[in-house]
Amino acid sequence: MAAVKAVRVHEYGKPPTLDDVPDPGLNGPLDVIVKVDAAGVCRTDLHIIEGQWAEKSGVELPYVIGHENAGTIVEVGQAVTGVSPGDKVILHPLVTCGLCRACRAGDDVHCTNSEFPGINRDGGMAEYLRTSIRSVVKLDDGLAPADVAALADAGLTAYHAVRKAVPLVHPGDRVVMIGAGGLGHIGLQCLLALTPARITVVDRSAEVLEKASKLGAHDTVLSDGDQVQQVLDQTGGEGAQVVLDFVGEHGTEADGVAMTRNSGSYFVIGYGGKVDVPTIDIISREINVVGNLVGSYNDLDDLMTLAAQGRVRLATKQYSLDDALTALDDLDGGRVPGGRAILTS
Amino acid sequence: MAAVKAVRVHEYGKPPTLDDVPDPGLNGPLDVIVKVDAAGVCRTDLHIIEGQWAEKSGVELPYVIGHENAGTIVEVGQAVTGVSPGDKVILHPLVTCGLCRACRAGDDVHCTNSEFPGINRDGGMAEYLRTSIRSVVKLDDGLAPADVAALADAGLTAYHAVRKAVPLVHPGDRVVMIGAGGLGHIGLQCLLALTPARITVVDRSAEVLEKASKLGAHDTVLSDGDQVQQVLDQTGGEGAQVVLDFVGEHGTEADGVAMTRNSGSYFVIGYGGKVDVPTIDIISREINVVGNLVGSYNDLDDLMTLAAQGRVRLATKQYSLDDALTALDDLDGGRVPGGRAILTS
Amino acid sequence: MAAVKAVRVHEYGKPPTLDDVPDPGLNGPLDVIVKVDAAGVCRTDLHIIEGQWAEKSGVELPYVIGHENAGTIVEVGQAVTGVSPGDKVILHPLVTCGLCRACRAGDDVHCTNSEFPGINRDGGMAEYLRTSIRSVVKLDDGLAPADVAALADAGLTAYHAVRKAVPLVHPGDRVVMIGAGGLGHIGLQCLLALTPARITVVDRSAEVLEKASKLGAHDTVLSDGDQVQQVLDQTGGEGAQVVLDFVGEHGTEADGVAMTRNSGSYFVIGYGGKVDVPTIDIISREINVVGNLVGSYNDLDDLMTLAAQGRVRLATKQYSLDDALTALDDLDGGRVPGGRAILTS
Amino acid sequence: MAAVKAVRVHEYGKPPTLDDVPDPGLNGPLDVIVKVDAAGVCRTDLHIIEGQWAEKSGVELPYVIGHENAGTIVEVGQAVTGVSPGDKVILHPLVTCGLCRACRAGDDVHCTNSEFPGINRDGGMAEYLRTSIRSVVKLDDGLAPADVAALADAGLTAYHAVRKAVPLVHPGDRVVMIGAGGLGHIGLQCLLALTPARITVVDRSAEVLEKASKLGAHDTVLSDGDQVQQVLDQTGGEGAQVVLDFVGEHGTEADGVAMTRNSGSYFVIGYGGKVDVPTIDIISREINVVGNLVGSYNDLDDLMTLAAQGRVRLATKQYSLDDALTALDDLDGGRVPGGRAILTS
Repeated sequence: MAAVKAVRVHEYGKPPTLDDVPDPGLNGPLDVIVKVDAAGVCRTDLHIIEGQWAEKSGVELPYVIGHENAGTIVEVGQAVTGVSPGDKVILHPLVTCGLCRACRAGDDVHCTNSEFPGINRDGGMAEYLRTSIRSVVKLDDGLAPADVAALADAGLTAYHAVRKAVPLVHPGDRVVMIGAGGLGHIGLQCLLALTPARITVVDRSAEVLEKASKLGAHDTVLSDGDQVQQVLDQTGGEGAQVVLDFVGEHGTEADGVAMTRNSGSYFVIGYGGKVDVPTIDIISREINVVGNLVGSYNDLDDLMTLAAQGRVRLATKQYSLDDALTALDDLDGGRVPGGRAILTS
Repeated sequence: MAAVKAVRVHEYGKPPTLDDVPDPGLNGPLDVIVKVDAAGVCRTDLHIIEGQWAEKSGVELPYVIGHENAGTIVEVGQAVTGVSPGDKVILHPLVTCGLCRACRAGDDVHCTNSEFPGINRDGGMAEYLRTSIRSVVKLDDGLAPADVAALADAGLTAYHAVRKAVPLVHPGDRVVMIGAGGLGHIGLQCLLALTPARITVVDRSAEVLEKASKLGAHDTVLSDGDQVQQVLDQTGGEGAQVVLDFVGEHGTEADGVAMTRNSGSYFVIGYGGKVDVPTIDIISREINVVGNLVGSYNDLDDLMTLAAQGRVRLATKQYSLDDALTALDDLDGGRVPGGRAILTS
Repeated sequence: MAAVKAVRVHEYGKPPTLDDVPDPGLNGPLDVIVKVDAAGVCRTDLHIIEGQWAEKSGVELPYVIGHENAGTIVEVGQAVTGVSPGDKVILHPLVTCGLCRACRAGDDVHCTNSEFPGINRDGGMAEYLRTSIRSVVKLDDGLAPADVAALADAGLTAYHAVRKAVPLVHPGDRVVMIGAGGLGHIGLQCLLALTPARITVVDRSAEVLEKASKLGAHDTVLSDGDQVQQVLDQTGGEGAQVVLDFVGEHGTEADGVAMTRNSGSYFVIGYGGKVDVPTIDIISREINVVGNLVGSYNDLDDLMTLAAQGRVRLATKQYSLDDALTALDDLDGGRVPGGRAILTS
Repeated sequence: MAAVKAVRVHEYGKPPTLDDVPDPGLNGPLDVIVKVDAAGVCRTDLHIIEGQWAEKSGVELPYVIGHENAGTIVEVGQAVTGVSPGDKVILHPLVTCGLCRACRAGDDVHCTNSEFPGINRDGGMAEYLRTSIRSVVKLDDGLAPADVAALADAGLTAYHAVRKAVPLVHPGDRVVMIGAGGLGHIGLQCLLALTPARITVVDRSAEVLEKASKLGAHDTVLSDGDQVQQVLDQTGGEGAQVVLDFVGEHGTEADGVAMTRNSGSYFVIGYGGKVDVPTIDIISREINVVGNLVGSYNDLDDLMTLAAQGRVRLATKQYSLDDALTALDDLDGGRVPGGRAILTS
């Protein structure tokens, strides 16, 4: 069995190392082996290295990180149909069973038997990754793995939330997005593609707001203390039909609820803080608080359609797999502003 | 203009008095005057008398309380169609405009121009009440005002929440109801009529649980500290698809969230406490927190259908209008257990 | 009472005449009088004149035609709120009651007590029109009555159908529009504003297809016998998720069903022909046939938002009210190609 | 390889024979082998034997018929999880791929790679059947294969249609069922369990109507020429919110459309005839024609829940597998009235 390169965590709190590891190889009839052409570097990777996920994932060290992956099929299990070696693919972050009630209802994200490569088993910051045929979305000829890898998790979460909001939004309805950074700027492009909403972007960074305006946001609000009032002023005092909170901490939770109109919905996408609302407010205003996790396989397929059509684009900064530690370090040090670090090989 | 009797609040913190007041009389072309045959006595009336609503309602004293009313049409405005003097009716608690976007979307509860007789203008603990043709639901011949008056607000809230839950519930899905008292026992009957759910009722009172079982609840859980675990045990550790919280305080908020399954919904109906959940839990479990206010006019019409069919029944204790103060006192003193006090005249 | 000008039908089969008629005047407390600045001339007006609607409408001759109206409020009934003389407005074609179950459910188009000015009572090809406050949508400052009048009925029907299709359409889903003339070219603009669909326009006119391409249609198919196969070829043999048939006669009904994918929906908007499908095909392919009437008041409000945003534009040819007969004659003679005739005064 | 018994068709137009055939054996990693304890005998089996399905199925003769199967797991493929030999199961009629967009959306019935044992490959009128883990629903301890086998296809179709109607039905809404025989009497029990509808059953047989009344139908109408008018009379001339047509031929198609209220839905479930409606009627009444195929895997799981709760019961007449030809003959000769023939072994 040939040795291949992979970025592995050996001890929490210490940098991972680029190791020679055994080629993953097929393990079951539905497995596929993917040559990882591009792997997104995500803030969650930093949290894993710090040990924040140690208990939750229960993964045994050392293991390979990397959960935003795209590449080329190189080998398939005996029961695999529909893809062949050579196909360019992006990988849904979960490996799901396809048999539980959730999978069969189209809600595969809540599969009761799922695994998460890069979180609780070997991931994609490596030359090769083993995953399942259930996780593979074929790429349009016009899409390169390095351009879309970071849509596999972050972008997919943003798309999923926007898609859930679609039936709630009529022309002229106000949608507020709190945060237009990594996830948010994908969410903004999805909102523009899928809805006729009047979009207000709220962010603490004037630079981010300027980029949001260029992408098509109708209004922007600098989050400097007066943001709730500004949104209310924009909406005749009523608030927004939908608020998409891509931050979910540092006070955006209270802001988001306050910006939501009666019988409207506050979507939680970012996390770190907490929603804390008196029940009298929830009922007298009849508002909804809507949780959002990563999207389904079909959501990823939809998102790849938008990418192939050029409606969703992602700014990236590329590194070779050999420079993985530099990429992680740059991300940690704030040296990948307004874009996503991608490892290519 | 003849004098008529009415229960009026003159000063917050003091008991209301039974006064002779002017006959309300028609005020606009869509008004109707109703002889109030039955008026529900509600805990909110006690809160009004205490002054808790003073600021929120902004009503000028003295005024007539009573917001759960049923009776007989006695006079109609010039533009009123569809009802005539002599018709038996129940009154939707709100007087809505019919012209704002919410009214026109079937969401009249969020009318931007509504008034609330008994809260912010003269209500129905009186011989006569002025309301609008928009608030009038004609009663089936088999229904007496005294039997249904208390469905006008409390029952309507319970029905509305259950109706919103209908599309979420498949056969075998677990629905948990926290609290099966005033609102809850109506909610339970609505759940049984509208869904195939497996229903668990959680309550602090063994007597209430026994009544719930008799009405058809499939399982009951005494709320004595172990209630969350018991619900999890009933659901293979997953929790319920829908949790309807008719209490909304004293810890049921946290219980309710903990009892909700991944991708499930926690409905807030009762109030007094607060929902306090880390955003990481909302997103990782992708749960929804759903506010519920009173139902729409059409909801009240639906509920009257269920009442006429005998699928929803309400236990009542009747008092004459002259004994209104006794009824309020009995309610305050816990002497109307498991039922609703109704003033009849 | 002053005399005002109006286009009236006196005898079916003969041209209407421009008459002096009494000023309509207020009739009830919710009435409004509108100075008609712009009235659309529609093919239905020709059919009325020919007598095709005589039995269905039951209207008494002579009467004023014109059912696509926009103008300026000049007088309001005593119970009217929210508009004042001088307001620019477009009129929903129906006068609805606001009190029946359909109106209260947001489905005012199915009001059980509605009237239809221009069809079964005096309409808007006149200096003044009496309608109800329930039919009045205020116009954005940027919109002139002459630019939007024809959206009141034709455009509203197209918007309504598109809005119903929104939840069915994901990125990459194919939507086929049969016919991109009067209604269709509004529908196309609405589809582009509200959905991420891949849109194929099918039409018998190469000129119409060229215009559709310029508006943003992704693919066009000339309807010359091979149109069904071309749509199947575009969709991998599967057919479209949604087919919007703006024609509804001359064979588009069978084409539309054949172009619909399994579990997809065929929307009937145009009429004149018939849907004739074996039940075995309906069930084995599990397809839906969806009827579409004019939109609701809120739909018209939405459509005015799109118009104000410049996302929906209508080509018009203007005539003075005095030239109404010329306009009707031009329409009948095919001399208003690719646009709508509008009477202005 | 041991020989096992199976009912095979050798030549269309001639009776099948009970043959010794090779044990089916596992073929792929997701296969399961089921000992068929009970196989429903269906009118479709008669049509297959007659040759009506020859072209559509393209199956090669001889082959084993039988598409309503329940039994006991005896062997599982290497990648199968969740079931073990000895488990009692009912089988979804389709073998689906789990990987296409439809399967992943919860719409497995429209799987683009499905097979149909008993139609286009060897079925279940046999001692053993090979199917896939994707088709297996475990039975509650209280359910015997012989009691539920016929729910696998006929009952599942009825449940599926009713479930789709659930969101459309409010208390007091009228639902009409045309036909309350095999599928219909299951549909009636499902309607009662899932909705608060007022149910009218229309049938040509007084005996069927009497059984429907006993099951809980609120009204019955003998279909003797006056049935449309009777339904209109029951509904104030408006028609029913939902019409479920379990017949779909011999004129029920036109009846069903005529019985549907404006903005209501006509569900096609039975087949043989055709829907033939002018487009003017479809749009002016804004009605929907809704196709219905067999239900999904999750629908079958739901239906088994209802069966385990005793809310859905099926009348059966049992035969041994050796008497399969007698059972087919009895069905053909009308000697299995009001029930389903089941082969047991």
